[in-house]
Parts: sequence; structure tokens; C-alpha cells
Amino acid sequence: MTTPVKLTVSRRQRGTPYTARVEALGVSAYSIVNRTILPKGFRKTVEEDYWHLREHVQLWDVGCQRQIEVCGPDAAKLTQLMTPRDLRKAKVGQCFYAPLIDANAGMINDPIILKLSENRFWLSIADSDVALWAKGLAQGYGLDVAVQEADVWPLAVQGPKSDDVLETIFGSDVREIRFFRFKWLEFQGHPLLIARSGYSKQGGFELYLDKPSLGLALWDAIWNAGQSFNISPGSPNLIERVEGGLLSLGNEMTNANNPLECGLEQYCSFDPDLHYIGKTALERIRAAGITQQIRGVLFGTQKCPPCRQPWRISVEEMQVGIVTTAIWSPRFKQNVALGMLDRGYWTPNHPIVITDENGQRYAGKVVALPFPETAIST
Amino acid sequence: MTTPVKLTVSRRQRGTPYTARVEALGVSAYSIVNRTILPKGFRKTVEEDYWHLREHVQLWDVGCQRQIEVCGPDAAKLTQLMTPRDLRKAKVGQCFYAPLIDANAGMINDPIILKLSENRFWLSIADSDVALWAKGLAQGYGLDVAVQEADVWPLAVQGPKSDDVLETIFGSDVREIRFFRFKWLEFQGHPLLIARSGYSKQGGFELYLDKPSLGLALWDAIWNAGQSFNISPGSPNLIERVEGGLLSLGNEMTNANNPLECGLEQYCSFDPDLHYIGKTALERIRAAGITQQIRGVLFGTQKCPPCRQPWRISVEEMQVGIVTTAIWSPRFKQNVALGMLDRGYWTPNHPIVITDENGQRYAGKVVALPFPETAIST
Repeated sequence: MTTPVKLTVSRRQRGTPYTARVEALGVSAYSIVNRTILPKGFRKTVEEDYWHLREHVQLWDVGCQRQIEVCGPDAAKLTQLMTPRDLRKAKVGQCFYAPLIDANAGMINDPIILKLSENRFWLSIADSDVALWAKGLAQGYGLDVAVQEADVWPLAVQGPKSDDVLETIFGSDVREIRFFRFKWLEFQGHPLLIARSGYSKQGGFELYLDKPSLGLALWDAIWNAGQSFNISPGSPNLIERVEGGLLSLGNEMTNANNPLECGLEQYCSFDPDLHYIGKTALERIRAAGITQQIRGVLFGTQKCPPCRQPWRISVEEMQVGIVTTAIWSPRFKQNVALGMLDRGYWTPNHPIVITDENGQRYAGKVVALPFPETAIST
Repeated sequence: MTTPVKLTVSRRQRGTPYTARVEALGVSAYSIVNRTILPKGFRKTVEEDYWHLREHVQLWDVGCQRQIEVCGPDAAKLTQLMTPRDLRKAKVGQCFYAPLIDANAGMINDPIILKLSENRFWLSIADSDVALWAKGLAQGYGLDVAVQEADVWPLAVQGPKSDDVLETIFGSDVREIRFFRFKWLEFQGHPLLIARSGYSKQGGFELYLDKPSLGLALWDAIWNAGQSFNISPGSPNLIERVEGGLLSLGNEMTNANNPLECGLEQYCSFDPDLHYIGKTALERIRAAGITQQIRGVLFGTQKCPPCRQPWRISVEEMQVGIVTTAIWSPRFKQNVALGMLDRGYWTPNHPIVITDENGQRYAGKVVALPFPETAIST
């Protein structure tokens, strides 16, 4: 999903410890996330990458997933203040997908929170300056906590052969890491945080390198170990993430959305003893009932263009929602999309019409998330 | 300054009300600022654009300069809390270039602050989420203020013929707008904030359109009026901004820098009655004396590559600073750069050696900012 337009380079649009390898492998497109370059395509097409990710293993430079470190006596207090997810029983070594919201219950970010110790957390963030939000809160509330962007550069290994590749380097310990847990394993004598997580539904790990000077060595070690397993350079795959129902901040949700309409109710606690910013607003929204919610959309038998701005979803010419991300699925032989559907129209199989930004209309229908593994009858 | 790498498109990397015109005019490169596309090149080279900007007039889509609106009874209080610049005597209709700092006196942003009314300000920001910082502070301090990103999309008209072009549309009133002041003038019956400001030293205006549906009409009106004045589409010009000593957040300065070392002392008040976040830290830095400061650098008689990461500046093989932005100047027939020089080495004309990211070494010297209009003897 690229324009013919190039990206300028500067210090501001930061590289990562892996950029030299990514460019040597012929990266063709970048996205910018947290003022850091995210490789988005190599020599294969997004469809070739999709099949490869489902069958083999890929190495992704996701250094743009910056780590906001919250550290100090009030670290747990500040972290809990920022999210409706109940972290009171969180244990060291666990990862938590967590919506962050403001006083109006508007989405600020949806990081993975890693509990490193009782007084130290990393928030592995999507594309907004959580450090500034956290620092502002700490300053205003007078909390005893230090907030900074840590010098940590995640690398993702994703796909069904991920365990095989990492076992070659880290031994069988890596296989025992449970889903959304992490362990510290040694790389060249340096402790490396490895979590079973990642921005795909194909399994795999994220390696949180906190010593950038080891970046190329770590990349090379994985790359070399991966040769027997048909490894390729990759990136979050748009087809796979849409089918998997993985949301993207700034695409599927903005600060104008609350976590309930984003389908994140399972991560929102309303326990009376739990205190977090935005709870009153969120309770009010829950009591009134949400008016829209994210769904999958399946439409059209011709490839759609990339979605650069919300597309209209209509029923009998009345707007009933928007498409926020869309791409051709080689598996469904239709376009798959994520979008926000109004109440009354969000039931799976509801017929809808999608109009893209060029005015092209497509017949489609609502689909529950994630998209099914088996074919959908049309 | 582009790679051969393309930029992916999505809703997250936002277009502006002017994007359709920018793309029709053949934009060749984008940068991303505040998750919004900033056009960075058209059909001319950066050198051709440089001469054109100095002699004629250009139309720039700077919608990425997002407006953070601070509104309510505590708006002036919150705005002042965020900056060392003394805003106590600020008048409605004035613009203020202002460093924003955190409790450690680290730079957070360097917006232009527009005072719209006693209780309403726009912060026209560089590339960081000032809205989150301001909202965090407002939340923590319990201030009676609303903070939001306003639906405002600046368009810049820059170059010596800017007054001529805008007079055609807005009449002679526009000529009377003083430097860093603004007026509301009418466009198609809608009041439009026009300020005499902009990210060049060639004169001109910024038009703060708060009705995006008028975007194409406004672009077209300026474009058509500009035909008699040799208008061209443009963008902040790297050569011109380096020579003019205009800083770029994320390039010349990061959160690791304080405003004194960024050469912004004139915007920092130490009045005992003035209260702002980071004042204690800034006073301590001032008392101890800064250890480095931004300077111009002139070096090499061969074109340097784009600066993607800080380059080493050395004297007798000892590191004494970094170059953060560099580009060939057709006027000086040398490379011009901005960088941070250690105390003891920051005096103009001090000879230095620059080593770029490919290991290439260049002889150079320190230059006071802005670069002189007349030639520099070497």
C-alpha cells in the first residue's frame, strides 16, 4: 500500500539498530511510527508475504514500538491511573494489552504493558507520545516516578516456525515462554527480554533489545538461524492483521473513540475499588450503551485501493459506518476491512454498501472479528 | 534529501485539505510531522527551490503544524506553566515563538503560541504530542481548561512576493499585518486567521484555515493569484532554513536538550514572580553555565549526504560536538550545517573536522547563526 511518493530522511525520523540490515535486504517502503521508521515491504508483494508469514517465519524490525519506562515508588499507581485494565494482580514477567484513555474515555494508546518489577514497567506503545501524557500526569499529581523513553529496540520473530528459529539461538528455554509472558535469556552474555507476543496471529516472539550496539549481531544471529526455516524479512502484514482483527491506533481508533466501541470491553474493569482516569466517563458510556463498534467487513470481488481516509458504509443510501483499513484478501478472494458500524447494523452478515475515496461502490457484508479461518459463503 | 524508499499511506498518516492539489502538482517526497504528511519536494531540486523561495513566492501545505487549542478559565495559566517565555503581557493578536520544557528543562516542543482571546490559545506545534502533555498537566493539576487538537490546517505563503499575492485576494489589509501578529480577514465569507510568520527567513504569511471544506478553494485562490508572481508549490527548504538558523525539533534538539543550549535564552524569563515547569532546573543550568550550544557549521567543497544521525565534530581527533542537519549550499559553494558545539569550541571561525555517517571527513569551521548574507572567506 504505497504511493509513488518517497519518504525524506533526517535524524528526526529515526532509524533503528537494524536499519542497515533492513536496507541491505532491499526494503521498498517505510511507515513512520513514533517518529521511527517501520519497514513495510521488501521484494515480495504483500500477498506473498501474507502466505509466507502463515507458513514459515519472518524477522521484523519493530523498533518503532518505543518503550515508555515508568519507574519509581509510584510507578504502579501511575500505570494503573492510565488504563481501565485491572493491573492490581499483575505479576512480574507478564504482558498486558491495555487501552489507555483520557478523562473523556477517549483512546490515547493501546500498548502492551510489561511488568519488569514491582516498581518498573515498560509500555510498548503504538503511535502517540505516551511519555508526554505520563509525564504530564506525574507532574500534575506530584507522583514520585520517573518517565522516559527507554533505549530499547524491539525485534519481532513471527510465524509458525518462530520457536524453531529461536531455539537454535537460545535453547529450549524459549519454547517454554507462555503466551504474553516474558523471560530474560542471554545473548552474547547480555540479558535479553523475550516475550511470546507480536502484531500477528501466527505466533512468535518479541525481543526487547536494551543494548543497541548488539542490534546487528542479534539480527544476524536470527537471520542465520532462520536460513534452515525459510526465514524472510517482513513487517506487520496488512492482510493478516485485518483478518486477525488486530487494531491500529490512528487507523481503526482515534482519541474520538472509546475502548468499548473499539471492542476492548474485556480490558476494561468497572470494579468499584479500582481507580483510573476516565472511569466516570466510561461508566456513563457503558450505561447509555455504545452507538457504534468495530467489525470486520467483507466486500467486492475487485481489488480496492488503499484506504487513506474513512470510507462511507451505507444501507439504503443512509450512512451507517466507516471503513478505516481495507485490502484484498487472496484467501477470501474479496476485500477484507475493519470499520466502525452503527448499532442496528453491526450484526454479522448484515448487507452493506462500501464507497471508496474514488467514489467506487462495492456490495459487502459485516463479519465478526477475527475473520474465520474457513471460507465464508457469499 | 530522499531515500529510494517509498512512504506507505493510511488513515493514520493523515492527509490535509490540500493533499489533492499537492499530489496533482507532482509532489515527489513526503515527511511525516505530527502523523500528518508534509510535502517536501516537487519537480524542482532543493537548490532550484532555494533560489525560487529567495526571489519569488511559494505555497506550502503545512497542515502538519497542528494547532493545540487550550481554552477555558485556566488557559492562560496552563499555557504559561508550559513555557519559560513570559506571556503575562501577551496581547490578543500576537504570536510568540516559545520553547516548551519539562521539569528537567528538557525541550518538549517549540511552537508558535497564538493568543486568540484572554481564555483561548493555539499552540502551532512541531513534531510531538503537546496535546498529551497539556492534557496530562491539566488533569493532574485539576485545571479548568479544555485541551484538544483543533480542526485547523495552516497553509504558508512564503517569499518576498507574498504580500503581492495575498493583497490580490484579501486587499491591502494584509500588508498591514505586522511581524508575528495576526488578523482575521474574510475568505468566501468565512473569517480566516492570517499571521505574518512562517518557517523561512524570506517573509510571508501563515493562513490558519479552520474550515477544511474551504481548503481547495483557498489553495486555488492563492495559486491563481500567484500566477502573475511566478508562484510555485514548495515546502520548508532545508538549505534556506539551515542558513537562516531555523531549528527543527527532533533534528537540532531533542528532550535531552535544554533551551539555553539551543540558543533560546531570549525566550526564557527568570523573573522571580514568574512560575513555570522546569524553572528550577533551568536556573540551575544557567548558574552552572551551559556546556554546549547550537552553531552553524560550514564545511567541505564536495556535496555531503543527508544527515540521518548525528555526525561527529572533532578537533585534533577529540569529539567536540555533533552535526544534526547538513546540506550543500549553492550560495556558499560549501556544505552548511547546524550542530551542537562544546564550550571552548563554539567560537565562530574555530576550525573543526566533520565525519559523516559514511566515514567521510571534511575540514570545516564554526559559523554564527544565522549564516551571513555575504560570502564567507575560507
